[in-house]
Amino acid sequence: MIKVGIVGGTGYTGVELLRLLAQHPAVELSAITSRGDAGTHVAAMFPSLRGRVDLKFEDPAAANLKACDLVFFATPNGVAMQQAPELLDAGVRVVDLAADYRIVDVAEWEKWYGMKHASPEWVAKAVYGLPEVNRNAIRGARLVANPGCYPTAVQLGFAPLVEAGLVEISGLIADAKSGVSGAGRKAEVSSLFSEASDNFKAYGVPGHRHLPEIRQGLSRMSKNGPVGLTFVPHLTPLIRGIHATLYARVTGEADFQALYEQRYADEPFVDVLPEKTHPETRSVRASNLCRISVHRPQGGDTLVILSVIDNLVKGAAGQAVQNMNIMFDLPETEGLWQLPVLP
Amino acid sequence: MIKVGIVGGTGYTGVELLRLLAQHPAVELSAITSRGDAGTHVAAMFPSLRGRVDLKFEDPAAANLKACDLVFFATPNGVAMQQAPELLDAGVRVVDLAADYRIVDVAEWEKWYGMKHASPEWVAKAVYGLPEVNRNAIRGARLVANPGCYPTAVQLGFAPLVEAGLVEISGLIADAKSGVSGAGRKAEVSSLFSEASDNFKAYGVPGHRHLPEIRQGLSRMSKNGPVGLTFVPHLTPLIRGIHATLYARVTGEADFQALYEQRYADEPFVDVLPEKTHPETRSVRASNLCRISVHRPQGGDTLVILSVIDNLVKGAAGQAVQNMNIMFDLPETEGLWQLPVLP
Amino acid sequence: MIKVGIVGGTGYTGVELLRLLAQHPAVELSAITSRGDAGTHVAAMFPSLRGRVDLKFEDPAAANLKACDLVFFATPNGVAMQQAPELLDAGVRVVDLAADYRIVDVAEWEKWYGMKHASPEWVAKAVYGLPEVNRNAIRGARLVANPGCYPTAVQLGFAPLVEAGLVEISGLIADAKSGVSGAGRKAEVSSLFSEASDNFKAYGVPGHRHLPEIRQGLSRMSKNGPVGLTFVPHLTPLIRGIHATLYARVTGEADFQALYEQRYADEPFVDVLPEKTHPETRSVRASNLCRISVHRPQGGDTLVILSVIDNLVKGAAGQAVQNMNIMFDLPETEGLWQLPVLP
Amino acid sequence: MIKVGIVGGTGYTGVELLRLLAQHPAVELSAITSRGDAGTHVAAMFPSLRGRVDLKFEDPAAANLKACDLVFFATPNGVAMQQAPELLDAGVRVVDLAADYRIVDVAEWEKWYGMKHASPEWVAKAVYGLPEVNRNAIRGARLVANPGCYPTAVQLGFAPLVEAGLVEISGLIADAKSGVSGAGRKAEVSSLFSEASDNFKAYGVPGHRHLPEIRQGLSRMSKNGPVGLTFVPHLTPLIRGIHATLYARVTGEADFQALYEQRYADEPFVDVLPEKTHPETRSVRASNLCRISVHRPQGGDTLVILSVIDNLVKGAAGQAVQNMNIMFDLPETEGLWQLPVLP
Repeated sequence: MIKVGIVGGTGYTGVELLRLLAQHPAVELSAITSRGDAGTHVAAMFPSLRGRVDLKFEDPAAANLKACDLVFFATPNGVAMQQAPELLDAGVRVVDLAADYRIVDVAEWEKWYGMKHASPEWVAKAVYGLPEVNRNAIRGARLVANPGCYPTAVQLGFAPLVEAGLVEISGLIADAKSGVSGAGRKAEVSSLFSEASDNFKAYGVPGHRHLPEIRQGLSRMSKNGPVGLTFVPHLTPLIRGIHATLYARVTGEADFQALYEQRYADEPFVDVLPEKTHPETRSVRASNLCRISVHRPQGGDTLVILSVIDNLVKGAAGQAVQNMNIMFDLPETEGLWQLPVLP
Repeated sequence: MIKVGIVGGTGYTGVELLRLLAQHPAVELSAITSRGDAGTHVAAMFPSLRGRVDLKFEDPAAANLKACDLVFFATPNGVAMQQAPELLDAGVRVVDLAADYRIVDVAEWEKWYGMKHASPEWVAKAVYGLPEVNRNAIRGARLVANPGCYPTAVQLGFAPLVEAGLVEISGLIADAKSGVSGAGRKAEVSSLFSEASDNFKAYGVPGHRHLPEIRQGLSRMSKNGPVGLTFVPHLTPLIRGIHATLYARVTGEADFQALYEQRYADEPFVDVLPEKTHPETRSVRASNLCRISVHRPQGGDTLVILSVIDNLVKGAAGQAVQNMNIMFDLPETEGLWQLPVLP
Repeated sequence: MIKVGIVGGTGYTGVELLRLLAQHPAVELSAITSRGDAGTHVAAMFPSLRGRVDLKFEDPAAANLKACDLVFFATPNGVAMQQAPELLDAGVRVVDLAADYRIVDVAEWEKWYGMKHASPEWVAKAVYGLPEVNRNAIRGARLVANPGCYPTAVQLGFAPLVEAGLVEISGLIADAKSGVSGAGRKAEVSSLFSEASDNFKAYGVPGHRHLPEIRQGLSRMSKNGPVGLTFVPHLTPLIRGIHATLYARVTGEADFQALYEQRYADEPFVDVLPEKTHPETRSVRASNLCRISVHRPQGGDTLVILSVIDNLVKGAAGQAVQNMNIMFDLPETEGLWQLPVLP
Repeated sequence: MIKVGIVGGTGYTGVELLRLLAQHPAVELSAITSRGDAGTHVAAMFPSLRGRVDLKFEDPAAANLKACDLVFFATPNGVAMQQAPELLDAGVRVVDLAADYRIVDVAEWEKWYGMKHASPEWVAKAVYGLPEVNRNAIRGARLVANPGCYPTAVQLGFAPLVEAGLVEISGLIADAKSGVSGAGRKAEVSSLFSEASDNFKAYGVPGHRHLPEIRQGLSRMSKNGPVGLTFVPHLTPLIRGIHATLYARVTGEADFQALYEQRYADEPFVDVLPEKTHPETRSVRASNLCRISVHRPQGGDTLVILSVIDNLVKGAAGQAVQNMNIMFDLPETEGLWQLPVLP
């Protein structure tokens, strides 16, 4: 059994980690911390876990995280960079679900996240945890930077095209739509039901923090130089789900449907749909799957790729567990094989 | 392995049965029928099952249902009463998720359902499949009448009081609210998103088919004669979920919280919440649980019981699988132990 | 033109007042205050008002409210009782949309609202602003206590029965369901989209602040002594809307449908639906209407009354404007005659 | 008073026309037809209109539409082309809310709509009813082809750029999201609450009927030859609202914010928002407004234009009334000046 700790388990990625880990046959949940809610039973805050998770939130100072084999940070940006190094030095492996170790260029990170990085030396050692691109490096990683939700959907959607060098790399467009749980379990007016329900809007068009992360990931895949990307996120009245609609101009011909099917043939969590179909976010709800469709409308020179994930699973907690499975040499689907919930 | 067939799998209870059975370790899915969609891949209709369920819908005439150990009828009312007897006679056990065998009084059934019963002889042999009340009879049953969704939530909520004879049995009130999936996957204007979303209404106040079923169930439990019940169902903009708010006047004193906790102490799927709390439908979403709270506002003589279930699981497909587990001597929670999905 | 001021206009009742008053032909909007947002353009916070409302929020200290003919308090409970008396003494008439002046028994108010009342002398002078019950007193009122949202729906639903003395007054039940905007535009976790969407729950069953208000109102109407009421509020995933399902036991016979139709025959904002029908919350969305259905299921002795309103209009801002119209001798429907928005 | 008839009033554009026309000071509603619901009171089908609209649906054959000054067709595609000519010949003016007269190239229309056109001679005489582009021609029109919902949002969003010839005309992208009422009030599984709620998907990516309409409209505005457009519609869980996210590559420099502000300076129903802001669909809910934001992320060469409308108002019934106002020399905002409903 892998002894697992969670730092900061009161948000949506925290409760989703708990849901997945409590059902994982190879995991022993050892500790979960929360500064503000220390002493509270996890199941009192999240009644969905009653009778199944018998932990209390502990104060971070009191929790014996060093006795864990793996610690997940489900904290706001800027916490893991402070607390992870001590655990790493003690031999604990870490998966950070926040953004602290995702961007290799520390200055760039500091610009977008508006704070000084507390452990830049670990940025270089961190492995970007997108298994479909980076599986081998994840296997031996001490510190995994779990990708953001938008970056997961967008990178998996663009990867076959960018790796093959068949599209105009300087003018990619990602029009992405997210459910409201992506904004977290924070008390903010803009996330209220009466604000976000029956409403649709773009946000962060001048610049969103996931832009440099996606650009970095796609540029690594590209043979044709750095990527130029326009990224427009939107808020849509779903609890869970991301739908990325991706646009790229063809520069080299191929059977694009076959390209995608081959690229993901061995991936347990990426499903390429048949031609002329459209993935729905609910078809991956509560599962670790990414489903992708490939379109070339009217045979023109613009490809349209549709990519859907559950932002809390493949976009956060599920991918973190997938990374854990790889790090600890478990079958990659262990504990992640529940079917999507539809309707 | 239990060889299982499903008759009529294109509705919401059908796809939910598929979700549960495809993950059940002791079940082999042998056949699924649909008159209208014979030849269609199940996963083409329900993409959430892609890669996991490799069946096609078969024509009922062609499907070899007699080779099954158990057949679930997930059909509209009036189908099982025609087709189940032949299977039963061939030694196949049957769980009917529709209403055909729920009401013992055939004349009463015919009045509420507006048709002549085709196999009244089997009505008498059928066992009402509410395990928390009827477990022993289910064990040996050849034909189980799976309870309706409202009747499950209301009966589990009232049972401890009615069995103990501590409330005025002639004036019970059940104010129940259901998600829209309860209306099924039928193309009807009243179930359209633009009709049912951002809207709340009662329906069927003059009389709803679940009224006689609940009345029959509660009257069987009652020591104090037949039950008088006012039942008001409402439609609320959820996909899944039933919330029953139950009112009863106290006629005899007791520690009602303790009464409920004791009554359900050994039930794996009924969770009595602590005093002064309120169950939420999402706390049981996609799970087979029923959560119940017991209130006595201002210490008056009216008890308020709150009972929530997922109408597609404990209110339909999950309870059907629970009945199957009992019928085949499996652990009752087998295949039904997934945690609720929250948020 | 009536010169109108609004104290505390940044909540949902505030923006709804602005929507209604900006379209009211006899009103001149003079000032709107907000301590936290002074200096902000109203239309920057509420872009629905762009081009139509040219006010800025002013600091309460700076705003010249005494020059107004009428001031609406759209503030949290406890503000009007501090600030209204000075305006009243200056001859300004006041409508308080909060609860400060609703409960005649000051000790009772202080118990439920957890604070000491700052102007109990005005409680006695205040008029409870439910026009269908209290129209004449409103006409000459200096201070109107605008009813709560639940109390409006429940009192209008019960009034004909209670006034006529035809039901058991000691055992009334009000099972009420509210949209989430009823919780206000406050940043609270429980009102987040990801908490309140696809979810249904009761709350406040041990005791809700609207209980004493409803009890007081119904007791005033009753010829048969004080009212005993069980009141259970629920949260349902609507933005706007209250649906009250009311239960009462018949003690005297009458044609109840006719009773309701006659009681409300001259009321412009109360619509009694035909027999055997069910009102929907969306049929009153964004309007000042209350629609009511009267049922007697199976001819038994329990009446079921269904009453729907838009909680922000007839349950708050619209009723406040209706009171203003009465106070200033305008046609009662002036500025309130927009049709409901459906779908 | 303008005597107005409506053909086919049982859909969402029909009931929205009724809502607007019943409140229009210069309109007398004379007749409304429905083949299937002749004899039914309009207010029985749409209780939001109770007490305010006293019409019954009439059989099309019986209704005296020729006595009207103007007839709106709120029918499925293919009805107006059969029935409008007779009315037109009798001197009645017609606004068709369906697609029959929108596409000038009849062969192209027949390809996309899959039927033979019944009155191609009237296609040439019809005026495309987008007032912001075509106001003068509308004034004298006998037959107005009211634009589609997507085409309205997309054309208003792109018009300033395309008219000015400042973007690459061959590679425009319109990523559009629509509420479910856009699919109409038809009983279809894909529009059910349990299918469309908590779900997001693209549809019609290989080709959608609004593509040729948008292409035709933009090509007319373009000085730089015909337009190449990729159009991807999506379904999002709103009742009302369209959000178009538009992408265009800059080919000539300008102050794009100023360009938009000047283009729409005199338009009562187009509101250009300040820089760096994002329009929300709810900010135009139930109103005839279009709100637009202009972005140039990171100063790159891709412009992002955000355009929102209410699909039932500016995208259908409201625009039809706006066209009527122009045709009958009324103030353009008459009967269309209600504020948006928010929240």
